[in-house]
Amino acid sequence: MSEALKQKILGMVKDDLAEIETALSENLRPYLDLVSDIARHILFSGGKRLRPLLTVTGAKLCGYNGNNTTKLSTIFEYLHAATLLHDDLVDGGTLRRGKKTAHLMWDNSSAVLVGDFLLARSLSIAAETGRTDVIKVVAEITENMSQGEIHQMLHKGAIDLTEKEYLQVISNKTAVLFQGACRFAAIIADAPAEHEQALSEYGYHLGIAFQMADDLLDYTVDSAALGKIVGADLREGKLTLPVIHALATAGDGARDRIIRFVQNPVFAAAEFQELIGLLERYGSIEYTRSQAADHIQSARQAISVFGDCTPKEILMDIAQYAMVRNM
Amino acid sequence: MSEALKQKILGMVKDDLAEIETALSENLRPYLDLVSDIARHILFSGGKRLRPLLTVTGAKLCGYNGNNTTKLSTIFEYLHAATLLHDDLVDGGTLRRGKKTAHLMWDNSSAVLVGDFLLARSLSIAAETGRTDVIKVVAEITENMSQGEIHQMLHKGAIDLTEKEYLQVISNKTAVLFQGACRFAAIIADAPAEHEQALSEYGYHLGIAFQMADDLLDYTVDSAALGKIVGADLREGKLTLPVIHALATAGDGARDRIIRFVQNPVFAAAEFQELIGLLERYGSIEYTRSQAADHIQSARQAISVFGDCTPKEILMDIAQYAMVRNM
Repeated sequence: MSEALKQKILGMVKDDLAEIETALSENLRPYLDLVSDIARHILFSGGKRLRPLLTVTGAKLCGYNGNNTTKLSTIFEYLHAATLLHDDLVDGGTLRRGKKTAHLMWDNSSAVLVGDFLLARSLSIAAETGRTDVIKVVAEITENMSQGEIHQMLHKGAIDLTEKEYLQVISNKTAVLFQGACRFAAIIADAPAEHEQALSEYGYHLGIAFQMADDLLDYTVDSAALGKIVGADLREGKLTLPVIHALATAGDGARDRIIRFVQNPVFAAAEFQELIGLLERYGSIEYTRSQAADHIQSARQAISVFGDCTPKEILMDIAQYAMVRNM
Repeated sequence: MSEALKQKILGMVKDDLAEIETALSENLRPYLDLVSDIARHILFSGGKRLRPLLTVTGAKLCGYNGNNTTKLSTIFEYLHAATLLHDDLVDGGTLRRGKKTAHLMWDNSSAVLVGDFLLARSLSIAAETGRTDVIKVVAEITENMSQGEIHQMLHKGAIDLTEKEYLQVISNKTAVLFQGACRFAAIIADAPAEHEQALSEYGYHLGIAFQMADDLLDYTVDSAALGKIVGADLREGKLTLPVIHALATAGDGARDRIIRFVQNPVFAAAEFQELIGLLERYGSIEYTRSQAADHIQSARQAISVFGDCTPKEILMDIAQYAMVRNM
């Protein structure tokens, strides 16, 4: 089902994706080759372009057909790429989409500075609109994302991270960007407040669900297929919902075993299967999946205020796909 | 002379500086203690507040007395602090103003993320003005500064850096921020284009002269007095104008000796005196000083279009002081 839905979505957004690719390349404009090389390494290595696609589709849903939408949508991919560069460094990540991370391929300094450049680029493009409401959205996202990442860093390896704190972290580090990309679409379309609110909620819930589903992938899918290391989140000290739920639910013996995984995250792939077994036994995989499904439901519900049309169908399908891709 | 001028300036800007200090503290607003700790470490350890002071004084020179000037001026100190956090990491700096740099006191990750936060904060404050011309200034500065720092990093230890390239680097990494702080003042004051241009030029030339004078300090003043390591720039692989000039001017034997310092920058304080001797012999200290003096002259000339008043006197004195502080 997952593959058929993916193909259906890709069929509907093919032209938009092609335009986004062109715009991402055209609007980068660095004057130094190194900036171009690193920015291209992170930008053009198989990203899904989900964030700019949300902006382009959201604007259409609001009846906007301005010819600058695609260019503006690059803001959200540049912002995303900037945070990937900084976060991989912060997290000590080694692989992304099957390629060496930029701070290893080049060095920490280059990753920091090219991230800064991409951040600045996204703000410059926002500033070009001449609309302060638009710019405020982008500035606020940036502020929230940096604090979300710091929050996560502060809790590295902490076994007392609560589900509430986890939600705050993924809200800041992921959902605000999805939310911003969608809200931005409504703003440039001069949509009524009700529609701006609807798209904003859609983006927020989609972002939460997307991150939960992403966190779940670490415990459900063969990591090699993702171009990642087995148990990468845990190795980086990141506690995500499946483990948080299991720690809160497991009996003493099992809990101690899970804590040992968290506190000493050096394990062979076979040992990691034991942890997955524990997460399954305590219903933690299922719990995470159902929480993500609830947010997908809220996302789809939010845009039900719009009349039926192709852009609405695309957003509905994207929400559905965010859920099934890991089943 | 330098001390008397400093006291004269401080006497004239005392109240403004006090208001800037309060504003820097009030507008930070992080929700996490770590962000506050690191931001305060870099923000409140003896900075001169030169950049916000340029904005506040420039606005007054343009006849503007809006009550938001001080808050807006923090943009330029936050931006400055953000780049210090990232640059110290990139340069491998160990001491700043006599204190351990943030990436050593905490870690690389914290320095990166708190830098991102300060960058975002400065953009949020700019966005609050609701003026896109103002926001564009800030976004452009950010873009230029990141590229300037990358440019510098790419030339680390390269003995073929030309004076022209050096100017491009210090223009992007230092002068655009001074220029932006001054131009910003004219814009919020709705000053005529002629005055905006005058303040912009003042800021640019002041920034170039300030950086040249700063680069000169590495070769003229007892480093301990600056809270820095002897020959810090060279140890970080940074070629600045005194060395660039000497490499272009010295005869073969002396040139080889200077190249050895650049390529193997591990030296005792006494050995470093030999390098200073070479720089003096080839007139490189004097050349740098005269170049800086020319830019100071251009800065003062630029604001001669304004009628005599206290803010003009302050800006004239600041330019003068930027020059004499290292004599």
